[in-house]
Amino acid sequence: MGKIICAGLGPGDPDLISVRADRAIRSARHVAYFRKAGRPGQARRIVDGMLASGADEHPMEYPVTTELPFDSPAYNNLLAAFYDDWAHRLAALAAHEDIVVLCEGDPFFYGSFMHLYVRLRDSAAIEVIPGIPGMAGCWNATGQPVTWGDDVLCVLMGTLSEADLTRHMQGADALVVMKTGRNLPKIRRALARAGRLDSAWLIERGTMPGQRVARLAEIEDRDCPYFAIVMVHGQGRRPIRLAGAAE
Amino acid sequence: MGKIICAGLGPGDPDLISVRADRAIRSARHVAYFRKAGRPGQARRIVDGMLASGADEHPMEYPVTTELPFDSPAYNNLLAAFYDDWAHRLAALAAHEDIVVLCEGDPFFYGSFMHLYVRLRDSAAIEVIPGIPGMAGCWNATGQPVTWGDDVLCVLMGTLSEADLTRHMQGADALVVMKTGRNLPKIRRALARAGRLDSAWLIERGTMPGQRVARLAEIEDRDCPYFAIVMVHGQGRRPIRLAGAAE
Repeated sequence: MGKIICAGLGPGDPDLISVRADRAIRSARHVAYFRKAGRPGQARRIVDGMLASGADEHPMEYPVTTELPFDSPAYNNLLAAFYDDWAHRLAALAAHEDIVVLCEGDPFFYGSFMHLYVRLRDSAAIEVIPGIPGMAGCWNATGQPVTWGDDVLCVLMGTLSEADLTRHMQGADALVVMKTGRNLPKIRRALARAGRLDSAWLIERGTMPGQRVARLAEIEDRDCPYFAIVMVHGQGRRPIRLAGAAE
Repeated sequence: MGKIICAGLGPGDPDLISVRADRAIRSARHVAYFRKAGRPGQARRIVDGMLASGADEHPMEYPVTTELPFDSPAYNNLLAAFYDDWAHRLAALAAHEDIVVLCEGDPFFYGSFMHLYVRLRDSAAIEVIPGIPGMAGCWNATGQPVTWGDDVLCVLMGTLSEADLTRHMQGADALVVMKTGRNLPKIRRALARAGRLDSAWLIERGTMPGQRVARLAEIEDRDCPYFAIVMVHGQGRRPIRLAGAAE
Protein backbone atom coordinates (compact mmCIF):
# COMPACT_ATOMS: atom_id res chain seq x y z
CA MET A 1 0.00 0.00 0.00
CA GLY A 2 1.57 3.27 -1.14
CA LYS A 3 0.65 6.87 -0.53
CA ILE A 4 0.14 10.05 -2.51
CA ILE A 5 2.71 12.69 -1.58
CA CYS A 6 1.98 16.20 -2.77
CA ALA A 7 5.25 18.12 -2.80
CA GLY A 8 5.00 21.92 -2.68
CA LEU A 9 7.68 23.28 -5.02
CA GLY A 10 7.81 26.87 -3.77
CA PRO A 11 8.13 29.95 -5.98
CA GLY A 12 10.26 28.46 -8.76
CA ASP A 13 13.93 28.28 -7.76
CA PRO A 14 14.57 24.55 -7.07
CA ASP A 15 16.93 25.57 -4.26
CA LEU A 16 13.88 26.95 -2.40
CA ILE A 17 12.12 23.58 -2.23
CA SER A 18 11.98 22.23 1.32
CA VAL A 19 14.44 19.55 2.41
CA ARG A 20 11.55 17.09 2.79
CA ALA A 21 10.03 17.76 -0.62
CA ASP A 22 13.46 17.69 -2.26
CA ARG A 23 14.08 14.23 -0.80
CA ALA A 24 10.63 12.97 -1.88
CA ILE A 25 11.08 14.25 -5.43
CA ARG A 26 14.58 12.82 -5.89
CA SER A 27 13.59 9.37 -4.66
CA ALA A 28 10.20 9.13 -6.41
CA ARG A 29 9.46 6.23 -8.74
CA HIS A 30 6.23 7.89 -9.95
CA VAL A 31 5.84 11.62 -10.50
CA ALA A 32 2.63 13.39 -11.58
CA TYR A 33 2.12 17.06 -12.44
CA PHE A 34 -0.46 19.34 -14.05
CA ARG A 35 0.24 21.05 -17.34
CA LYS A 36 -1.51 22.58 -20.31
CA ALA A 37 -1.73 20.27 -23.31
CA GLY A 38 1.36 20.55 -25.48
CA ARG A 39 3.37 22.52 -22.89
CA PRO A 40 6.24 21.23 -20.72
CA GLY A 41 4.56 22.59 -17.61
CA GLN A 42 6.04 24.94 -15.02
CA ALA A 43 6.03 22.36 -12.18
CA ARG A 44 7.93 19.85 -14.31
CA ARG A 45 10.40 22.52 -15.37
CA ILE A 46 11.24 23.39 -11.76
CA VAL A 47 12.40 19.81 -11.04
CA ASP A 48 14.46 19.46 -14.22
CA GLY A 49 17.52 17.39 -13.41
CA MET A 50 16.15 16.24 -10.04
CA LEU A 51 14.14 13.15 -11.01
CA ALA A 52 15.64 9.69 -10.57
CA SER A 53 16.52 7.97 -13.81
CA GLY A 54 13.72 5.60 -14.73
CA ALA A 55 11.07 7.52 -12.78
CA ASP A 56 7.65 7.18 -14.43
CA GLU A 57 6.12 10.54 -15.32
CA HIS A 58 2.38 11.18 -15.35
CA PRO A 59 1.54 14.53 -16.93
CA MET A 60 -2.03 15.51 -16.01
CA GLU A 61 -3.06 17.61 -18.99
CA TYR A 62 -5.89 20.08 -18.43
CA PRO A 63 -8.78 19.72 -20.85
CA VAL A 64 -8.94 22.50 -23.43
CA THR A 65 -11.60 24.97 -22.23
CA THR A 66 -10.86 28.09 -24.28
CA GLU A 67 -14.25 27.91 -26.06
CA LEU A 68 -16.24 27.65 -22.83
CA PRO A 69 -17.35 30.50 -20.56
CA PHE A 70 -15.55 30.27 -17.25
CA ASP A 71 -18.79 30.09 -15.23
CA SER A 72 -20.73 27.71 -17.53
CA PRO A 73 -21.97 24.27 -16.40
CA ALA A 74 -20.12 22.76 -19.37
CA TYR A 75 -16.80 24.22 -18.16
CA ASN A 76 -17.48 23.11 -14.63
CA ASN A 77 -18.38 19.57 -15.70
CA LEU A 78 -15.37 19.17 -17.96
CA LEU A 79 -12.98 20.16 -15.18
CA ALA A 80 -14.80 18.05 -12.59
CA ALA A 81 -14.56 15.00 -14.87
CA PHE A 82 -10.85 15.69 -15.39
CA TYR A 83 -10.20 15.79 -11.65
CA ASP A 84 -12.39 12.70 -11.06
CA ASP A 85 -10.45 10.80 -13.68
CA TRP A 86 -7.02 11.66 -12.27
CA ALA A 87 -8.14 11.00 -8.72
CA HIS A 88 -9.01 7.45 -9.80
CA ARG A 89 -5.75 6.98 -11.66
CA LEU A 90 -3.61 8.25 -8.77
CA ALA A 91 -5.51 6.09 -6.29
CA ALA A 92 -4.92 3.03 -8.49
CA LEU A 93 -1.19 3.77 -8.68
CA ALA A 94 -0.96 4.45 -4.95
CA ALA A 95 -2.52 1.08 -4.20
CA HIS A 96 0.87 -0.40 -5.07
CA GLU A 97 3.54 2.25 -4.46
CA ASP A 98 4.13 5.89 -3.54
CA ILE A 99 3.48 8.61 -6.08
CA VAL A 100 4.72 12.18 -5.80
CA VAL A 101 2.47 14.94 -7.16
CA LEU A 102 4.33 18.18 -7.92
CA CYS A 103 2.60 21.43 -7.02
CA GLU A 104 3.95 24.96 -7.55
CA GLY A 105 3.99 27.22 -4.52
CA ASP A 106 2.09 25.85 -1.52
CA PRO A 107 -0.44 23.07 -2.30
CA PHE A 108 -3.15 24.38 0.07
CA PHE A 109 -2.90 28.00 -1.13
CA TYR A 110 -4.89 28.32 -4.38
CA GLY A 111 -3.27 25.08 -5.62
CA SER A 112 -4.80 22.72 -8.20
CA PHE A 113 -3.88 19.70 -6.11
CA MET A 114 -6.74 20.59 -3.74
CA HIS A 115 -9.20 19.32 -6.32
CA LEU A 116 -7.57 15.89 -6.20
CA TYR A 117 -7.10 16.09 -2.45
CA VAL A 118 -10.79 16.51 -1.63
CA ARG A 119 -11.61 13.59 -3.93
CA LEU A 120 -8.97 11.29 -2.43
CA ARG A 121 -8.64 12.14 1.25
CA ASP A 122 -11.23 9.67 2.45
CA SER A 123 -9.93 6.73 0.43
CA ALA A 124 -6.15 7.13 0.07
CA ALA A 125 -3.15 7.90 2.28
CA ILE A 126 -2.09 11.46 1.40
CA GLU A 127 0.81 13.54 2.66
CA VAL A 128 0.94 17.22 1.74
CA ILE A 129 4.35 18.92 2.07
CA PRO A 130 3.95 22.70 2.30
CA GLY A 131 5.98 25.03 0.10
CA ILE A 132 6.94 28.69 0.00
CA PRO A 133 3.98 30.44 -1.70
CA GLY A 134 4.73 32.11 -5.01
CA MET A 135 3.85 35.50 -3.52
CA ALA A 136 6.66 35.12 -0.93
CA GLY A 137 9.13 34.58 -3.77
CA CYS A 138 7.77 37.76 -5.34
CA TRP A 139 8.10 39.98 -2.29
CA ASN A 140 11.55 38.54 -1.71
CA ALA A 141 12.38 39.58 -5.29
CA THR A 142 11.40 43.19 -4.54
CA GLY A 143 13.96 43.32 -1.71
CA GLN A 144 11.38 44.90 0.60
CA PRO A 145 9.43 43.44 3.52
CA VAL A 146 5.75 43.10 2.62
CA THR A 147 4.27 43.55 6.11
CA TRP A 148 5.35 45.26 9.35
CA GLY A 149 3.88 45.48 12.82
CA ASP A 150 0.09 45.45 12.63
CA ASP A 151 -0.25 45.73 8.84
CA VAL A 152 -3.29 44.04 7.30
CA LEU A 153 -2.40 41.94 4.24
CA CYS A 154 -5.07 41.22 1.65
CA VAL A 155 -4.59 38.62 -1.11
CA LEU A 156 -6.86 39.22 -4.11
CA MET A 157 -7.50 37.56 -7.45
CA GLY A 158 -7.52 39.81 -10.52
CA THR A 159 -10.69 38.02 -11.64
CA LEU A 160 -12.74 39.88 -8.99
CA SER A 161 -14.92 42.83 -10.01
CA GLU A 162 -13.41 46.30 -10.09
CA ALA A 163 -15.68 47.39 -7.25
CA ASP A 164 -14.60 44.47 -5.04
CA LEU A 165 -10.93 45.02 -5.85
CA THR A 166 -11.19 48.71 -5.04
CA ARG A 167 -12.94 48.12 -1.73
CA HIS A 168 -10.32 45.63 -0.52
CA MET A 169 -7.44 47.78 -1.79
CA GLN A 170 -8.76 50.72 0.24
CA GLY A 171 -9.15 48.68 3.40
CA ALA A 172 -5.83 46.82 3.64
CA ASP A 173 -2.26 48.02 4.18
CA ALA A 174 -0.34 45.47 2.09
CA LEU A 175 -1.77 43.97 -1.10
CA VAL A 176 -1.05 40.95 -3.27
CA VAL A 177 -3.01 40.52 -6.52
CA MET A 178 -2.70 37.22 -8.37
CA LYS A 179 -4.21 36.12 -11.72
CA THR A 180 -3.24 39.35 -13.44
CA GLY A 181 -2.70 39.06 -17.24
CA ARG A 182 -5.73 40.38 -19.10
CA ASN A 183 -7.19 41.59 -15.80
CA LEU A 184 -4.40 44.15 -15.51
CA PRO A 185 -6.34 47.19 -16.87
CA LYS A 186 -9.07 46.52 -14.28
CA ILE A 187 -6.51 45.99 -11.48
CA ARG A 188 -4.78 49.23 -12.45
CA ARG A 189 -8.07 51.19 -12.39
CA ALA A 190 -8.95 49.73 -8.99
CA LEU A 191 -5.52 50.62 -7.57
CA ALA A 192 -5.87 54.17 -8.90
CA ARG A 193 -9.36 54.53 -7.39
CA ALA A 194 -8.00 53.25 -4.07
CA GLY A 195 -5.05 55.67 -4.22
CA ARG A 196 -2.50 52.85 -4.30
CA LEU A 197 -1.28 52.82 -7.91
CA ASP A 198 1.91 54.80 -7.28
CA SER A 199 3.16 52.27 -4.73
CA ALA A 200 2.29 49.15 -6.76
CA TRP A 201 4.87 46.76 -8.19
CA LEU A 202 4.60 44.08 -10.84
CA ILE A 203 6.71 40.97 -10.23
CA GLU A 204 7.20 38.32 -12.88
CA ARG A 205 8.98 34.98 -12.44
CA GLY A 206 9.97 35.78 -8.83
CA THR A 207 13.14 33.80 -7.84
CA MET A 208 13.39 32.32 -11.36
CA PRO A 209 15.64 33.06 -14.35
CA GLY A 210 14.21 36.10 -16.13
CA GLN A 211 12.81 37.56 -12.91
CA ARG A 212 11.44 41.06 -13.47
CA VAL A 213 10.46 43.64 -10.88
CA ALA A 214 9.01 46.95 -12.07
CA ARG A 215 6.73 49.73 -10.90
CA LEU A 216 3.27 48.94 -12.23
CA ALA A 217 2.81 52.55 -13.38
CA GLU A 218 5.73 52.04 -15.78
CA ILE A 219 4.41 48.79 -17.37
CA GLU A 220 2.10 48.53 -20.40
CA ASP A 221 -1.12 46.59 -19.83
CA ARG A 222 -0.42 44.28 -22.76
CA ASP A 223 2.97 43.33 -21.30
CA CYS A 224 1.73 41.29 -18.34
CA PRO A 225 1.66 37.48 -18.12
CA TYR A 226 -1.13 35.75 -16.21
CA PHE A 227 1.20 34.53 -13.50
CA ALA A 228 2.76 37.88 -12.70
CA ILE A 229 1.83 39.27 -9.29
CA VAL A 230 0.94 42.85 -8.38
CA MET A 231 2.03 43.94 -4.93
CA VAL A 232 1.81 46.93 -2.61
CA HIS A 233 4.06 46.80 0.46
CA GLY A 234 2.77 47.70 3.92
CA GLN A 235 4.42 50.59 5.75
CA GLY A 236 3.38 49.69 9.30
CA ARG A 237 4.84 50.36 12.70
CA ARG A 238 8.61 50.11 13.02
CA PRO A 239 10.85 51.35 15.85
CA ILE A 240 13.07 54.28 14.87
CA ARG A 241 15.07 56.69 17.06
CA LEU A 242 12.85 59.56 18.14
CA ALA A 243 14.83 62.75 18.69
CA GLY A 244 14.46 64.02 22.24
CA ALA A 245 12.41 61.06 23.47
CA ALA A 246 13.20 59.58 26.85
CA GLU A 247 15.42 56.49 26.71
CA MET B 1 34.39 40.87 2.83
CA GLY B 2 31.56 38.65 4.07
CA LYS B 3 27.82 38.96 3.83
CA ILE B 4 24.80 38.72 6.09
CA ILE B 5 22.56 35.81 5.12
CA CYS B 6 19.09 35.80 6.64
CA ALA B 7 17.79 32.23 6.51
CA GLY B 8 14.01 31.81 6.69
CA LEU B 9 13.35 28.76 8.89
CA GLY B 10 9.74 28.10 7.91
CA PRO B 11 6.98 27.05 10.31
CA GLY B 12 9.06 25.01 12.75
CA ASP B 13 9.77 21.52 11.41
CA PRO B 14 13.47 21.61 10.39
CA ASP B 15 12.63 19.34 7.47
CA LEU B 16 10.59 22.22 6.01
CA ILE B 17 13.57 24.57 5.74
CA SER B 18 14.54 25.23 2.11
CA VAL B 19 17.49 23.38 0.61
CA ARG B 20 19.37 26.69 0.30
CA ALA B 21 18.76 27.80 3.88
CA ASP B 22 19.58 24.32 5.20
CA ARG B 23 22.95 24.45 3.43
CA ALA B 24 23.68 27.97 4.71
CA ILE B 25 22.83 27.02 8.30
CA ARG B 26 24.87 23.81 8.33
CA SER B 27 27.97 25.50 6.93
CA ALA B 28 27.76 28.74 8.96
CA ARG B 29 30.71 29.81 11.13
CA HIS B 30 28.63 32.58 12.74
CA VAL B 31 24.95 32.24 13.62
CA ALA B 32 22.76 34.99 15.11
CA TYR B 33 19.15 34.78 16.30
CA PHE B 34 16.62 36.77 18.30
CA ARG B 35 15.36 35.52 21.64
CA LYS B 36 13.83 36.74 24.84
CA ALA B 37 16.33 37.15 27.69
CA GLY B 38 16.79 33.90 29.57
CA ARG B 39 14.98 31.77 26.97
CA PRO B 40 16.53 29.35 24.47
CA GLY B 41 14.62 30.99 21.61
CA GLN B 42 12.36 29.31 19.08
CA ALA B 43 14.62 30.00 16.08
CA ARG B 44 17.60 28.43 17.83
CA ARG B 45 15.51 25.45 18.87
CA ILE B 46 14.47 24.74 15.27
CA VAL B 47 18.11 24.31 14.18
CA ASP B 48 19.09 22.10 17.12
CA GLY B 49 21.58 19.53 15.88
CA MET B 50 22.15 21.35 12.57
CA LEU B 51 24.94 23.80 13.48
CA ALA B 52 28.55 22.96 12.64
CA SER B 53 30.69 22.18 15.65
CA GLY B 54 32.60 25.28 16.62
CA ALA B 55 30.09 27.68 15.08
CA ASP B 56 29.98 30.96 17.02
CA GLU B 57 26.51 31.80 18.30
CA HIS B 58 25.25 35.35 18.72
CA PRO B 59 21.95 35.45 20.62
CA MET B 60 20.28 38.84 20.11
CA GLU B 61 18.31 39.25 23.33
CA TYR B 62 15.35 41.61 23.22
CA PRO B 63 15.42 44.33 25.87
CA VAL B 64 12.90 43.79 28.64
CA THR B 65 9.92 46.03 27.88
CA THR B 66 7.17 44.59 30.07
CA GLU B 67 6.92 47.80 32.15
CA LEU B 68 6.53 50.06 29.10
CA PRO B 69 3.35 50.82 27.16
CA PHE B 70 3.59 49.37 23.68
CA ASP B 71 3.03 52.72 21.98
CA SER B 72 5.23 54.86 24.25
CA PRO B 73 8.29 56.79 22.99
CA ALA B 74 10.36 55.00 25.63
CA TYR B 75 9.38 51.58 24.26
CA ASN B 76 10.03 52.70 20.72
CA ASN B 77 13.44 54.14 21.59
CA LEU B 78 14.55 51.10 23.54
CA LEU B 79 13.75 48.79 20.62
CA ALA B 80 15.27 51.15 18.07
CA ALA B 81 18.51 51.31 20.09
CA PHE B 82 18.52 47.50 20.31
CA TYR B 83 18.21 47.13 16.53
CA ASP B 84 20.78 49.89 15.93
CA ASP B 85 23.24 48.12 18.20
CA TRP B 86 22.85 44.71 16.57
CA ALA B 87 22.98 46.19 13.09
CA HIS B 88 26.41 47.61 13.98
CA ARG B 89 27.61 44.35 15.49
CA LEU B 90 26.48 42.25 12.52
CA ALA B 91 28.04 44.70 10.06
CA ALA B 92 31.35 44.49 11.97
CA LEU B 93 31.28 40.69 11.86
CA ALA B 94 30.32 40.63 8.18
CA ALA B 95 33.28 42.83 7.33
CA HIS B 96 35.39 39.70 7.77
CA GLU B 97 33.21 36.66 7.11
CA ASP B 98 29.66 35.49 6.42
CA ILE B 99 27.10 35.44 9.22
CA VAL B 100 23.79 33.60 9.10
CA VAL B 101 20.82 35.20 10.87
CA LEU B 102 18.03 32.74 11.70
CA CYS B 103 14.47 33.93 11.19
CA GLU B 104 11.29 31.92 11.87
CA GLY B 105 8.81 31.72 9.02
CA ASP B 106 9.55 34.05 6.12
CA PRO B 107 11.90 36.97 6.92
CA PHE B 108 9.94 39.58 4.92
CA PHE B 109 6.55 38.60 6.35
CA TYR B 110 6.18 40.24 9.80
CA GLY B 111 9.76 39.14 10.62
CA SER B 112 12.02 40.87 13.15
CA PHE B 113 14.95 40.66 10.75
CA MET B 114 13.39 43.49 8.73
CA HIS B 115 14.43 45.94 11.43
CA LEU B 116 18.07 44.95 10.90
CA TYR B 117 17.62 44.75 7.15
CA VAL B 118 16.51 48.36 6.70
CA ARG B 119 19.44 49.53 8.84
CA LEU B 120 22.00 47.45 6.94
CA ARG B 121 20.89 47.26 3.34
CA ASP B 122 22.76 50.34 2.16
CA SER B 123 26.05 49.43 3.83
CA ALA B 124 26.35 45.62 3.87
CA ALA B 125 25.90 42.71 1.46
CA ILE B 126 22.68 40.96 2.51
CA GLU B 127 21.01 37.84 1.16
CA VAL B 128 17.51 36.97 2.34
CA ILE B 129 16.41 33.36 1.82
CA PRO B 130 12.61 33.09 1.92
CA GLY B 131 10.88 30.51 4.09
CA ILE B 132 7.46 28.90 4.39
CA PRO B 133 5.40 31.37 6.47
CA GLY B 134 4.19 30.07 9.81
CA MET B 135 0.58 30.44 8.68
CA ALA B 136 1.20 27.96 5.83
CA GLY B 137 2.41 25.41 8.37
CA CYS B 138 -0.79 26.06 10.31
CA TRP B 139 -3.20 25.57 7.42
CA ASN B 140 -1.24 22.49 6.42
CA ALA B 141 -1.79 21.21 9.97
CA THR B 142 -5.56 21.59 9.60
CA GLY B 143 -5.52 19.27 6.56
CA GLN B 144 -7.72 21.70 4.63
CA PRO B 145 -6.90 24.10 1.80
CA VAL B 146 -7.10 27.70 3.01
CA THR B 147 -8.13 29.33 -0.30
CA TRP B 148 -9.92 28.21 -3.49
CA GLY B 149 -10.70 29.89 -6.79
CA ASP B 150 -11.31 33.59 -6.24
CA ASP B 151 -11.29 33.59 -2.44
CA VAL B 152 -10.02 36.74 -0.74
CA LEU B 153 -7.53 36.02 2.06
CA CYS B 154 -7.04 38.57 4.81
CA VAL B 155 -4.15 38.35 7.30
CA LEU B 156 -4.86 40.25 10.54
CA MET B 157 -3.03 40.92 13.78
CA GLY B 158 -4.94 40.29 17.01
CA THR B 159 -3.63 43.64 18.27
CA LEU B 160 -6.06 45.52 15.99
CA SER B 161 -9.23 47.04 17.43
CA GLU B 162 -12.37 44.93 17.64
CA ALA B 163 -14.10 47.18 15.10
CA ASP B 164 -11.25 46.82 12.58
CA LEU B 165 -11.07 43.07 13.10
CA THR B 166 -14.82 42.71 12.60
CA ARG B 167 -14.85 44.79 9.43
CA HIS B 168 -12.07 42.76 7.81
CA MET B 169 -13.56 39.47 8.95
CA GLN B 170 -16.85 40.39 7.29
CA GLY B 171 -15.21 41.38 4.03
CA ALA B 172 -12.85 38.47 3.34
CA ASP B 173 -13.45 34.79 2.57
CA ALA B 174 -10.43 33.22 4.27
CA LEU B 175 -8.91 34.63 7.45
CA VAL B 176 -5.63 34.30 9.30
CA VAL B 177 -5.23 36.05 12.67
CA MET B 178 -1.78 36.19 14.23
CA LYS B 179 -0.64 37.62 17.60
CA THR B 180 -3.49 35.96 19.48
CA GLY B 181 -2.74 35.20 23.18
CA ARG B 182 -4.38 37.78 25.41
CA ASN B 183 -6.13 39.24 22.35
CA LEU B 184 -8.21 36.07 22.02
CA PRO B 185 -11.38 37.32 23.78
CA LYS B 186 -11.45 40.33 21.41
CA ILE B 187 -10.74 38.12 18.35
CA ARG B 188 -13.54 35.78 19.41
CA ARG B 189 -16.02 38.65 19.79
CA ALA B 190 -15.06 40.04 16.40
CA LEU B 191 -15.48 36.62 14.74
CA ALA B 192 -18.89 36.23 16.36
CA ARG B 193 -19.99 39.71 15.22
CA ALA B 194 -18.80 38.86 11.70
CA GLY B 195 -20.68 35.53 11.77
CA ARG B 196 -17.45 33.52 11.39
CA LEU B 197 -16.88 32.04 14.85
CA ASP B 198 -18.33 28.60 14.09
CA SER B 199 -15.87 28.03 11.25
CA ALA B 200 -12.78 29.29 13.09
CA TRP B 201 -9.84 27.07 14.09
CA LEU B 202 -7.01 27.62 16.54
CA ILE B 203 -3.66 26.15 15.51
CA GLU B 204 -0.75 25.96 17.88
CA ARG B 205 2.80 24.86 17.03
CA GLY B 206 1.85 24.01 13.42
CA THR B 207 4.23 21.30 11.99
CA MET B 208 6.06 21.07 15.35
CA PRO B 209 6.00 18.50 18.16
CA GLY B 210 2.95 19.22 20.31
CA GLN B 211 0.98 20.57 17.34
CA ARG B 212 -2.64 21.25 18.30
CA VAL B 213 -5.58 21.95 16.01
CA ALA B 214 -8.96 22.70 17.58
CA ARG B 215 -12.19 24.52 16.85
CA LEU B 216 -11.90 27.95 18.44
CA ALA B 217 -15.40 27.66 19.89
CA GLU B 218 -14.17 24.72 21.97
CA ILE B 219 -11.08 26.47 23.42
CA GLU B 220 -10.92 28.54 26.61
CA ASP B 221 -9.62 32.09 26.19
CA ARG B 222 -6.98 31.59 28.85
CA ASP B 223 -5.60 28.56 27.02
CA CYS B 224 -4.09 30.37 24.04
CA PRO B 225 -0.38 31.13 23.54
CA TYR B 226 0.66 34.34 21.76
CA PHE B 227 2.01 32.48 18.75
CA ALA B 228 -1.08 30.41 18.07
CA ILE B 229 -2.92 31.32 14.89
CA VAL B 230 -6.67 31.62 14.35
CA MET B 231 -7.87 30.62 10.90
CA VAL B 232 -11.06 30.48 8.85
CA HIS B 233 -10.82 28.52 5.58
CA GLY B 234 -12.25 29.88 2.34
CA GLN B 235 -14.98 27.91 0.59
CA GLY B 236 -14.59 29.37 -2.91
CA ARG B 237 -15.33 28.07 -6.37
CA ARG B 238 -14.43 24.44 -7.06
CA PRO B 239 -15.52 22.23 -9.98
CA ILE B 240 -17.97 19.50 -8.97
CA ARG B 241 -20.19 17.29 -11.15
CA LEU B 242 -23.51 19.00 -11.81
CA ALA B 243 -26.32 16.49 -12.24
CA GLY B 244 -27.98 16.88 -15.62
CA ALA B 245 -25.62 19.60 -16.86
CA ALA B 246 -24.39 19.45 -20.44
CA GLU B 247 -20.95 17.87 -20.83
